[in-house]
Amino acid sequence: MIQNKTILVAGGDLRQMSLAKLFDKNNKVFCVGLEQGSGISHLKTTVDELIMKNVAFDYIILPMPASLDNNTINCPFSSKNLLIDDVLCLADEKTAVYGGKLSLNMKQHLEEKKLWYLDYLDREELAVLNAVPTAEGTIQILMEELPTTVYGTRCLLIGNGRITKVLTPRLIAMGAKVTVSARKYSDYAWIEIAGAKAISTHDIASHILNQDVVINTVPAMVLNEEILSKVDENCLLIDLASKPGGIDFTIAREMGLKTIWALSLPGKVAPVSAGKIIYETIQNVEAERRIHLD
Amino acid sequence: MIQNKTILVAGGDLRQMSLAKLFDKNNKVFCVGLEQGSGISHLKTTVDELIMKNVAFDYIILPMPASLDNNTINCPFSSKNLLIDDVLCLADEKTAVYGGKLSLNMKQHLEEKKLWYLDYLDREELAVLNAVPTAEGTIQILMEELPTTVYGTRCLLIGNGRITKVLTPRLIAMGAKVTVSARKYSDYAWIEIAGAKAISTHDIASHILNQDVVINTVPAMVLNEEILSKVDENCLLIDLASKPGGIDFTIAREMGLKTIWALSLPGKVAPVSAGKIIYETIQNVEAERRIHLD
Amino acid sequence: MIQNKTILVAGGDLRQMSLAKLFDKNNKVFCVGLEQGSGISHLKTTVDELIMKNVAFDYIILPMPASLDNNTINCPFSSKNLLIDDVLCLADEKTAVYGGKLSLNMKQHLEEKKLWYLDYLDREELAVLNAVPTAEGTIQILMEELPTTVYGTRCLLIGNGRITKVLTPRLIAMGAKVTVSARKYSDYAWIEIAGAKAISTHDIASHILNQDVVINTVPAMVLNEEILSKVDENCLLIDLASKPGGIDFTIAREMGLKTIWALSLPGKVAPVSAGKIIYETIQNVEAERRIHLD
Amino acid sequence: MIQNKTILVAGGDLRQMSLAKLFDKNNKVFCVGLEQGSGISHLKTTVDELIMKNVAFDYIILPMPASLDNNTINCPFSSKNLLIDDVLCLADEKTAVYGGKLSLNMKQHLEEKKLWYLDYLDREELAVLNAVPTAEGTIQILMEELPTTVYGTRCLLIGNGRITKVLTPRLIAMGAKVTVSARKYSDYAWIEIAGAKAISTHDIASHILNQDVVINTVPAMVLNEEILSKVDENCLLIDLASKPGGIDFTIAREMGLKTIWALSLPGKVAPVSAGKIIYETIQNVEAERRIHLD
Repeated sequence: MIQNKTILVAGGDLRQMSLAKLFDKNNKVFCVGLEQGSGISHLKTTVDELIMKNVAFDYIILPMPASLDNNTINCPFSSKNLLIDDVLCLADEKTAVYGGKLSLNMKQHLEEKKLWYLDYLDREELAVLNAVPTAEGTIQILMEELPTTVYGTRCLLIGNGRITKVLTPRLIAMGAKVTVSARKYSDYAWIEIAGAKAISTHDIASHILNQDVVINTVPAMVLNEEILSKVDENCLLIDLASKPGGIDFTIAREMGLKTIWALSLPGKVAPVSAGKIIYETIQNVEAERRIHLD
Repeated sequence: MIQNKTILVAGGDLRQMSLAKLFDKNNKVFCVGLEQGSGISHLKTTVDELIMKNVAFDYIILPMPASLDNNTINCPFSSKNLLIDDVLCLADEKTAVYGGKLSLNMKQHLEEKKLWYLDYLDREELAVLNAVPTAEGTIQILMEELPTTVYGTRCLLIGNGRITKVLTPRLIAMGAKVTVSARKYSDYAWIEIAGAKAISTHDIASHILNQDVVINTVPAMVLNEEILSKVDENCLLIDLASKPGGIDFTIAREMGLKTIWALSLPGKVAPVSAGKIIYETIQNVEAERRIHLD
Repeated sequence: MIQNKTILVAGGDLRQMSLAKLFDKNNKVFCVGLEQGSGISHLKTTVDELIMKNVAFDYIILPMPASLDNNTINCPFSSKNLLIDDVLCLADEKTAVYGGKLSLNMKQHLEEKKLWYLDYLDREELAVLNAVPTAEGTIQILMEELPTTVYGTRCLLIGNGRITKVLTPRLIAMGAKVTVSARKYSDYAWIEIAGAKAISTHDIASHILNQDVVINTVPAMVLNEEILSKVDENCLLIDLASKPGGIDFTIAREMGLKTIWALSLPGKVAPVSAGKIIYETIQNVEAERRIHLD
Repeated sequence: MIQNKTILVAGGDLRQMSLAKLFDKNNKVFCVGLEQGSGISHLKTTVDELIMKNVAFDYIILPMPASLDNNTINCPFSSKNLLIDDVLCLADEKTAVYGGKLSLNMKQHLEEKKLWYLDYLDREELAVLNAVPTAEGTIQILMEELPTTVYGTRCLLIGNGRITKVLTPRLIAMGAKVTVSARKYSDYAWIEIAGAKAISTHDIASHILNQDVVINTVPAMVLNEEILSKVDENCLLIDLASKPGGIDFTIAREMGLKTIWALSLPGKVAPVSAGKIIYETIQNVEAERRIHLD
């Protein structure tokens, strides 16, 4: 476990605040770019003050995404700009830098400074654990948008990846009738074992008619005009796939279909848990680094 | 099944509209007091028109609750008053009247007119089926209010009635850690078999400390000042018990605790399903009446 | 909790041995009529020895069933007769006697001696807890008898009592397709909420055709000749109902149907757990008695 | 789907018989080396008769394992030897040969004859589907061997492969307390999401003490002397790993521990289902071959 270390938490939203509080239990934590964050007053400081005090950092934790413009740190909880350069000036050769969705530009920056860094989005366990808030956020959308119960609802999940694997048992436990599309025979087997009905991706068109909800998890244009034309007018379409997404939203809107493009659910519906997931992932990475150093 | 009958659906909200559409498939349905309802244009009419046409009704379906003032039908989807007397004038000795939460006054009225009537809220299967939208609505509140996932959340459910029996397996399937309080040894057995931890109602005070959510289902003042003083400041308190409720809200507010008094969830979170539940219950009652008449 | 008491465990099988070991942790325990029991050597004694030592007992625990002949204690683990009279001679006015399935004769005997006694089979929590080994034993029979997996098997459960309520979620979790027959609309609601298909007891004949397994839990002749004639020849019939049972076994045998009358499963498939259930039930009764005495 | 084809089912056990019956619905099926099999009288024949009739086969289905001696077909339901050569003589260049656990020798044989062949054990979906009867068979062993219920039993599963993924939710649904060991952080995440406790393979020694059942699924010597010395004397050890297995059976026996090496469970506990799984896998392979041919 990371303890007795000096850690800078820079920018970000409730996830960074959650993570800062967790590290604060066993470490010395400083927060910059989080002025409007509550519950972390004792941790807030400024880059100037840190330079003045000449604090040496073991870790710098950047938010997710780390930057939106390749120049400043992503700081939704601050009204001031926080320059990437200013934050990285606080690092020395022993500082490890963590961040989410690091751009190529940011990575070049980090490499020039010869800093060890890691994009925690590349870690498999983070992706798995994030499937939980994503699945829960999807159920929340279902509950908010449908005038019916989830119980008895016919749901088609497109793709049998991590999110579907977490979502399927939850929907079934609530009494939904779940169909999952996939491409491989072994996936069909897993889907049926999970208690859902398996169909081939090629057969979506013929199974989409009688669905109350369609949830796409595949980052490819699955729900095109042809398939959308078969969807029931009251069907709710939820796209969980990152850009460009899997639904032709323009066509869907023209058809009067209700579509929701739900991106980055973990940070939105469960920021405290999402921060904890990042915190645990960093702990895992450090445990592995310690083994490699030994 | 009720078919080829003439049915008046009077007042109410989305539940009555849902129910009207379901009856419409096999019967002649008229709606009054639902002017602002959408999707039922072809069913809307007025009492005057019905009198003029001299329509004889097999059934009159009143909303839930049937009346708020003992004088007019409860009509949230209408800007005009709909008098109870005017609606009941449309009944004759063969008309069966259904409604929810019929007041003593309303019942006297119906008896004076020698009408057969039934309060569907008195039916056990309706109470059981309504536990599903209530449980889902409770999970929706949890998801909306908590900055964490339901997964990993410690939930205390007070009382082991219908709602708890539906809520417990759903919360467990989502990964919550569920404790249920009850009064009887046989209830403890059922609770443990359901995968939750059973505690005595007498021991709530000592178990409430480490809960993230407390959900009360018992219509008695369980969460009084003494017990509330032990609740964690971040704990979410949800009261599902009808008036007077089971939480001392004044004290809870003074303590800065987050409390939500969630009443009548079925009509709010899943009106279409709630209407269908009333529809099915009326079908059951009529099936029983037919057997008795045979 | 019962502690520092002197307890006589008389007769019975592995359940009594399991119970004796549990009481032994905090009490002084003596066993009679269990000579062939293993793991309790230090507890074994004889009535003669107990009389000689003049031991005063707080509790005498009789087996389940207590006696098969109204004269001797039911002692399958002993080759000698153990007379009821001899055992009860060891009681005084302060001794509480527990036993299972106490006959009228046995009760008269106990009353004549003015002994406080209780048949633990009358306790609701014991019946609930016993539903777990009964359900597991039924699944074991299914697994042993069927050449197929439980996964995908169509099971009809007759009656929606305790056993069905424990069996249904387990069968569903294993991937069986479960139908449950009942008599009340509220039961239909509970069955569907549990994820099974509900049918009326009146409709068993028309639903029994396509079943791979039929499990009866109702102590009434449900599966009579007419209904048995519709059962598939490969269908497995299990009767969990106590005498006279719910299957016409003579007819079933003539038809070549495979039938299993599975009685008293807890003691057979999980005697250690069944003994623990009796132990816990006695603890509950004593907790209640202490409250009443206070 | 395979239909209107001529199929030879050679040797094997109840699985081959189950598979023969399934193919018989839409094809012309002949069985050799299954003389003692029941329910397939109309399909039984001999190699000599087939040669005489000069039947041309589209498919030859060998059993699992296909041969035990590289000379004869594995024929437990026959008292006569069935030579591999004699069976393969019935093939021509258009015959596709399927079998399980084909030895190198057998494969060379098939290649010399220029026959298209496939070992269905190499198919991922067969391995996934076989995890169901394996998991059920394991539960059956638990039920038969333990004097307690599965409910409340503490089970340690070693390895988080297919079998564990199917077994975990079933054991949890029955009320067992499940711990799973694995090697990767992402596996820990999946295990916890499934409702079990995740531990590192390195920590088995410290967690094995308080287990009632240990189930090994890893084909490596995990339960060596050091670890076995920490196991409770009443603990049941089940090894599901194929040879050489994961338990040091000699040491375990010396210690008086109860061990069961449960191999090839699908064919033993659910032969009809196991045959159906092979049947479906062959159907999948043929569907893929058709696509490639098109």
